[in-house]
Amino acid sequence: MRTEIATLGEFGLIRHLTEGIELKNESSRYGIGDDAAVLSYPAGKDVLMTTDLLLEGVHFDLTYVPLKHLGYKSAVVNFSDIYAMNGTPRQITVSLGVSKRFSVEDMEALYAGIRLACEEYGVDIVGGDTTSSLTGLTISITCIGEVEKGKAVYRNGAQETDLVCVSGDLGAAYMGLQLLEREKMALKDSVEGIQPDFAGKEYLLERQLKPEARRDIVEKLRKAGIQPTAMMDISDGLSSELLHICTQSKVGCRIYEEHIPLDYQTAVMAEELNLNVTTCALNGGEDYELLFTVPIADHEKVSEMEGVKLIGHITKPELGCALITRDGQEFELKAQGWNPLREKENGEA
Amino acid sequence: MRTEIATLGEFGLIRHLTEGIELKNESSRYGIGDDAAVLSYPAGKDVLMTTDLLLEGVHFDLTYVPLKHLGYKSAVVNFSDIYAMNGTPRQITVSLGVSKRFSVEDMEALYAGIRLACEEYGVDIVGGDTTSSLTGLTISITCIGEVEKGKAVYRNGAQETDLVCVSGDLGAAYMGLQLLEREKMALKDSVEGIQPDFAGKEYLLERQLKPEARRDIVEKLRKAGIQPTAMMDISDGLSSELLHICTQSKVGCRIYEEHIPLDYQTAVMAEELNLNVTTCALNGGEDYELLFTVPIADHEKVSEMEGVKLIGHITKPELGCALITRDGQEFELKAQGWNPLREKENGEA
Repeated sequence: MRTEIATLGEFGLIRHLTEGIELKNESSRYGIGDDAAVLSYPAGKDVLMTTDLLLEGVHFDLTYVPLKHLGYKSAVVNFSDIYAMNGTPRQITVSLGVSKRFSVEDMEALYAGIRLACEEYGVDIVGGDTTSSLTGLTISITCIGEVEKGKAVYRNGAQETDLVCVSGDLGAAYMGLQLLEREKMALKDSVEGIQPDFAGKEYLLERQLKPEARRDIVEKLRKAGIQPTAMMDISDGLSSELLHICTQSKVGCRIYEEHIPLDYQTAVMAEELNLNVTTCALNGGEDYELLFTVPIADHEKVSEMEGVKLIGHITKPELGCALITRDGQEFELKAQGWNPLREKENGEA
Repeated sequence: MRTEIATLGEFGLIRHLTEGIELKNESSRYGIGDDAAVLSYPAGKDVLMTTDLLLEGVHFDLTYVPLKHLGYKSAVVNFSDIYAMNGTPRQITVSLGVSKRFSVEDMEALYAGIRLACEEYGVDIVGGDTTSSLTGLTISITCIGEVEKGKAVYRNGAQETDLVCVSGDLGAAYMGLQLLEREKMALKDSVEGIQPDFAGKEYLLERQLKPEARRDIVEKLRKAGIQPTAMMDISDGLSSELLHICTQSKVGCRIYEEHIPLDYQTAVMAEELNLNVTTCALNGGEDYELLFTVPIADHEKVSEMEGVKLIGHITKPELGCALITRDGQEFELKAQGWNPLREKENGEA
């Protein structure tokens, strides 16, 4: 079943996709259907705002990413940015640029993913824009969140002797991408009907295709009475993000290879691909884990937190940013993270 | 002089373009450089949020739109949506998707326009995203504004016997577009070096290339103590917007051809092109004037307002929405406004 988008038109498509959306947050006063959404935040809250632009062929490849997953991920990466400020996401606007290649059913799938993410994270869709595009799919989401006044956590607050922590494990999303790319290549040359074999690698795929934002960690920190001194989410890779925190906080850091959290499947896949797993954990992007620093006084509290790993500490700026390997060597950290502007710009004549 | 964007990379380009940006609004607590911007609105204000996605080849044609003008307009159309809610724009985020065709200097020009608009309207750039694109230029801007609690003006509040008003004049932006398209065609076939002749048509070009948002009207209404019952900005055409207000307010309307405000240049150009000027005023988009309704009790006040024209009145829903022509005939209003999803989707194979 394929319904052409042109049969609905711009307003018709928006109406169709946003049908039945109900506003759940008290701060969402008026959603879709006017020149602007109206939000009402109480006096004790600051408002957080983040935005993300995703372009087909640059940020996602629809040959292996299902549209519903893409929708889910597009929303979640924005929520992740709000959590990384110590906040709670509340509203999003969704703008889509859609070429004729896509049907109404495609957009339903994409929107189903966005709506699912919003339900799971308690976020309201309050507006957006849908338009045609000459080529491919464009997704632009802006997310508004809230944080207790004065409690936002920036990248620039890390202090000497602070502890460096990360949530979850790293490198799996990158491994998932490698896996999908490999299967795409393999399927190109193979007989029709053969399905890729992802057995035993489900976690890697899930990390790449359906990442989650670490709301749970932010809540745990709050409950434990820990206010991180600096925090950000890991979208471009641990190295790159650590350098952001250290540069903006004007400090250095030491992190320890042996403490970097890895999943078993990540390690196995790295070996299969003949890649250094630490390099993947340092530079692979899209993990959407939280990287944060806490005062050394919180050492005990943070050590006891499930899903949080202590990977190093903040130093004087003169000492730079370095990784201490298992055999005690020191390597300067470099940002080799995923950079679409440098790596992927080869599509246009 | 042409500097390739790849020489700066994603972070480098953002840094370069946003250099020297200072936050001027008290509500802008933290701008570019973290996972999210931090805004702080006082208890007496509601927050407005609007977003707009502009794609090359669909919403703009760079063969005749200078990048600086495009930047200015991209920002202003968002401000216009905030004013149309009776609010004041305060912050924007700017996301750009840029193909290799564009240089750093091109992006400087685009950003110069955005920054100029922000300066003129007192808006802070607090964030954004810059990435490569495989083809063309993508601009996604989200604007946050404020309005006194409970004073937002929606589309759904028009009441029977209310007066229908518009600011400025209509159809000129559409005429400007026709003019640019005509010159583009003419220049294709002509000798090199010949410049298009826009003498006497400057107003039309300005309306198309450098529209302004009607902050002044919103301020005048406030000063006069008039709270419109419904309001929106005219981006798709008067007919289309009137139908939005009437549908959402569950009312009908009568507007009078003789009262629709037209500029002299618009009328001349329409004649030149053999177009009905009323049709252009009704269906030509991008005027960014304000369309609003006020209680009949405000008749005197609103009649005295400079730059505001009373064009008709709201009726019972059963009477539908109609235009009364100069010779007294009644025509049902139809939305033939500019709809990129229906009209322009012919670029992709």
